[in-house]
Amino acid sequence: MRNAAEPIAIVAGGGTLPLELRDSLAAMGRPAVIITIRGFADRATRACGIGSVDIVDPKGLLRLLERASARELVLAGTVRRPSGAAVLGLFSAARNRAELKSIIDPLLASGDDGLLRGVVAFLEGKGHVVRGVTELAPHLLAPLGPMGIGRPAAGAEAAIATGRALLDTLSTFDIGQAAVVRAGRVLGIEGPEGTDRMLMRVAALNRSRFGFLKAERPAGGVLIKRPKTGQDLRVDLPAIGPRTVERAKAAGLEGIAVAAGLTLVLERQRTIDAANAAGLFLLGV
Amino acid sequence: MRNAAEPIAIVAGGGTLPLELRDSLAAMGRPAVIITIRGFADRATRACGIGSVDIVDPKGLLRLLERASARELVLAGTVRRPSGAAVLGLFSAARNRAELKSIIDPLLASGDDGLLRGVVAFLEGKGHVVRGVTELAPHLLAPLGPMGIGRPAAGAEAAIATGRALLDTLSTFDIGQAAVVRAGRVLGIEGPEGTDRMLMRVAALNRSRFGFLKAERPAGGVLIKRPKTGQDLRVDLPAIGPRTVERAKAAGLEGIAVAAGLTLVLERQRTIDAANAAGLFLLGV
Repeated sequence: MRNAAEPIAIVAGGGTLPLELRDSLAAMGRPAVIITIRGFADRATRACGIGSVDIVDPKGLLRLLERASARELVLAGTVRRPSGAAVLGLFSAARNRAELKSIIDPLLASGDDGLLRGVVAFLEGKGHVVRGVTELAPHLLAPLGPMGIGRPAAGAEAAIATGRALLDTLSTFDIGQAAVVRAGRVLGIEGPEGTDRMLMRVAALNRSRFGFLKAERPAGGVLIKRPKTGQDLRVDLPAIGPRTVERAKAAGLEGIAVAAGLTLVLERQRTIDAANAAGLFLLGV
Repeated sequence: MRNAAEPIAIVAGGGTLPLELRDSLAAMGRPAVIITIRGFADRATRACGIGSVDIVDPKGLLRLLERASARELVLAGTVRRPSGAAVLGLFSAARNRAELKSIIDPLLASGDDGLLRGVVAFLEGKGHVVRGVTELAPHLLAPLGPMGIGRPAAGAEAAIATGRALLDTLSTFDIGQAAVVRAGRVLGIEGPEGTDRMLMRVAALNRSRFGFLKAERPAGGVLIKRPKTGQDLRVDLPAIGPRTVERAKAAGLEGIAVAAGLTLVLERQRTIDAANAAGLFLLGV
């Protein structure tokens, strides 16, 4: 059993989750230390960190964990779409071009999470316990049913059912955390580009056709989001936040439906307020 | 039986297909007249047309068909992503905003082909026969096996199999004429935005990650393209052309695999030459 005073390490990528999680753990009486991933963690997160490591340097992470006496850790925040700084970090971490290639090849082959999954396996092999946000702070996840004041109309319910069936089907191809469905028609399936860019694509689709009618005729449609079957939620947990709502509104959608208990709602109050202000429903399904 | 001298009408959208088809019919001794769809047909096509009609004016089309004594017709060329001129045409065709809405609503609901399918049903009801490019000019379609000099490596064969299985699966959702697969990983699924934009997305994906390594390390991957199951090929036939090759190259792909006998290869020689020059394989499967 762990010592109650033993801190858990939050290994922090981008976004607000690392600090939300720290606050949430603190409220439950659990001390936490933050170790930031170089090139990904936000400035506010870095200001609270005890140190930072390169994403391709699990040994450096191990040293920081030991220094903090943290046997348990949790990954929190985004590490997708490396920033320029992260890519430069890769360069500085590699001694030569061959080593750089040996780092980048598996990353490209196995997708966004490949590298982090490798880090998780490495740390577990060293006796560390890797927790998930889902177990540490389930109240940060979407509940079943509506958040906010919007409710889906009958057409939106049908779109949600289509979207869920579609994402189920796609799971065997290891793709599809999100889709946009409007009136039975699939307008977009999320690829490695992420939810925000898919929503921008749907917005562009509206614009390029009947842009000048948009103000009079909201386009409708629903964003459906959930984890892929078999996805390691400790490494990659679907999330929505205020920006998702903003993009969904720009795409003319009626609402957002996410997998209850399996999707983070970042900055919950801001997200719900934004959905209410935009007239979008926000639903855990 | 039709009179051998009776012309077939080519109802022409954008791109080179209408004139390619006319030349091909002429080589087989079949006279053809061209009726252009306003806002879509290219300038060169318009120069050869006997008249032009609005996409929302099937009665105008009927008059032109009768004037040309053409009982048979074929739709050829693209009508996706209406140009500004086409949208203005919609406006001028509608007498008022309610009528405009009655035109646009089914178009938005049923997708790109909805309106054309309606036109086909209308003309058939008036005794006209709507042919497909597949029956009139099968030599414009992709043959089984390689076109050009490139051949897929083992990895590309696996990507093609994954892509075909994926598109098969998606067919029940009435989406997915194309996908990009690299090393077992699905990088993009085509939505209503079309193949070109999906390829631009894959190219952007490469750039945003390791842009400066791109020149040294071709990314690989295959574009797979085929009609949806149950798709009316007279209304919407998948097509590739020189621009597809250009975009595929920009996305770092190894090659293009299309459904043999079910995909147009526009400007065939230019397309094959471009693939050869770019080092891409071009395969009918």
